[in-house]
Amino acid sequence: MKDITLKEIATTLGISITTVSKALKNYPDVSLKTKNAVTELAQKLHYTPNSFAVNLRTKESKTIGLIIPEVLHHFFSNIINAIIDEAEKNGYLVIILQSNETLELEKKQVELLINKRVDGILISLSNESNYDEHLKEIVNRNIPLVMFDKISKLAKCSKVIIDDQKAAFNAVQHLIDKGCKKIAHIRGPENPQNAIDRYIGYKKALEKNNIAFDPKLVYTCEKVSFEEGHEFAKQILADHPDTDGIFVITDLVAVGVLSYFNEIGIKVPDQIAVIGFSNWFISQVFTPKLSTVDQPSNEMGISAFNLLLEEMNCHKEKTVFTPKTIELDTNIIVRESTMKL
Amino acid sequence: MKDITLKEIATTLGISITTVSKALKNYPDVSLKTKNAVTELAQKLHYTPNSFAVNLRTKESKTIGLIIPEVLHHFFSNIINAIIDEAEKNGYLVIILQSNETLELEKKQVELLINKRVDGILISLSNESNYDEHLKEIVNRNIPLVMFDKISKLAKCSKVIIDDQKAAFNAVQHLIDKGCKKIAHIRGPENPQNAIDRYIGYKKALEKNNIAFDPKLVYTCEKVSFEEGHEFAKQILADHPDTDGIFVITDLVAVGVLSYFNEIGIKVPDQIAVIGFSNWFISQVFTPKLSTVDQPSNEMGISAFNLLLEEMNCHKEKTVFTPKTIELDTNIIVRESTMKL
Repeated sequence: MKDITLKEIATTLGISITTVSKALKNYPDVSLKTKNAVTELAQKLHYTPNSFAVNLRTKESKTIGLIIPEVLHHFFSNIINAIIDEAEKNGYLVIILQSNETLELEKKQVELLINKRVDGILISLSNESNYDEHLKEIVNRNIPLVMFDKISKLAKCSKVIIDDQKAAFNAVQHLIDKGCKKIAHIRGPENPQNAIDRYIGYKKALEKNNIAFDPKLVYTCEKVSFEEGHEFAKQILADHPDTDGIFVITDLVAVGVLSYFNEIGIKVPDQIAVIGFSNWFISQVFTPKLSTVDQPSNEMGISAFNLLLEEMNCHKEKTVFTPKTIELDTNIIVRESTMKL
Repeated sequence: MKDITLKEIATTLGISITTVSKALKNYPDVSLKTKNAVTELAQKLHYTPNSFAVNLRTKESKTIGLIIPEVLHHFFSNIINAIIDEAEKNGYLVIILQSNETLELEKKQVELLINKRVDGILISLSNESNYDEHLKEIVNRNIPLVMFDKISKLAKCSKVIIDDQKAAFNAVQHLIDKGCKKIAHIRGPENPQNAIDRYIGYKKALEKNNIAFDPKLVYTCEKVSFEEGHEFAKQILADHPDTDGIFVITDLVAVGVLSYFNEIGIKVPDQIAVIGFSNWFISQVFTPKLSTVDQPSNEMGISAFNLLLEEMNCHKEKTVFTPKTIELDTNIIVRESTMKL
């Protein structure tokens, strides 16, 4: 594509570049005749203002970066959906990158976005990340940054979170209220904060109800997959056949558990009740329908973008911005998998 | 963030801008001592090359645009996944926009991407789009363009497709091979090419097997949703209780059908066999497991990006590029919902 410049339009019409520029911006001090001539020629030549050039002047790219662990994860698809819609409403475009849960890729992607001079960065951390150098670098460079869902508590930036401990506590309390006495937990990997917090919530609920915590009842996912759920369900039955409740880190894994129980004819919830986390679409349509913790993904995407927008605006106006943390509410959704009489 | 320029580094060290630039690019004619001094200061000052400035020189933004109908659609999540990974491997970033199946948004988004001077555009059309002006504009401006999955046959650009007619024909032939004699079709909306082609494939399979086509057995989705599947299943039973097979436009809708049949105790496949399209994840884990047409989403994303890359490279080298169409193979995946004896 040949780039048409203001200069070419000016030369062709025999007027100054300033006049062309003013005509295109509809300034009152340019005659209607000139405006028409300029607009007509600009259209004929497919002229578009060069937004990269504009960027050098305003120092804004009107583009933000979004790094998430996995596009294919139902929760993150929802978040992407909310963020790109909200960004577009506010005149921003979104570059999306996925870290595939690795620190190495995440570091590289942060560098790419910094080099691209995005106006701000939204990130949900990979399972391997903490408040590492690449994230400190964003803050040190004073680039607006918001972490959401998978965050580092140490990070000096805005955050949008849920109270994972409380949500997990409520999920396990729900199992106990339904009469469960021996509750296993299929947890997430060792490092990410949300997996740690959900595990703590599980322990606290047991403690509150005077049920002894048994570390042997805790199973740790590596990949957080459907297949792991299926496999752990088998192991739990073999290791502790009298288990009567399972609290699972996320719905995808919980559906793997239900799928194994369906195969071998274990009655859910009569023999074992199961509760997941995140309210994936699949949970509503699976047989039996899965009880879960509703994580407000849409609201989280919208809040994260708007917090970033607030910081980008402060940045533009050179006013001080103090990082904020927004905590969103969660609810237990009771479905067939815990609906004991 | 204060932008550090080569000039500031040059002034501070008392050397020329050219030397600073060469030092940062590790040119052999700069002494190691100078290189070290420059690198150290650049790091200290958080210097990053301004990629928007680079862009003005090379006329490349190393950014592409991707417009899809819906992020939350399982097939498109897979495509996004493949495209952003493939783009990143080749040094490109991806701006993602969703048209929400409307022509109006799609038009606006094409304009945004043109103004942003992306190096190329990948698009899967909304249900309302044909080869309209906004798409012709991309071609007229000589901006590399690849359409995938939902395309316009008239468009003068590269395309990555499957043979929807043949795939649908095979799906319906599979139902006939399993003994189905009265087959309903839940089709997609009137306009999109893939819905039209799947409908034609359905009719051709009936014709080939001397089964009379009955337009009353065709039900048309508006939203292509789980809920519509659920509702149409009810209607089909009421209108044509002797229906023994259903070919459904996509798995999400087919799972809605199965869910209704589960509720009222219709035996699948004994009473009615059901086959979907696209091989969503949910189809493998639903009870009964859904037979479907495997649509190679990963391969489609990779092919679409590489075709765009080929065109972008020709464009850069100012050589002629002739648009290509890549057709990918599909397969029938037989699962419980059609596994009659």
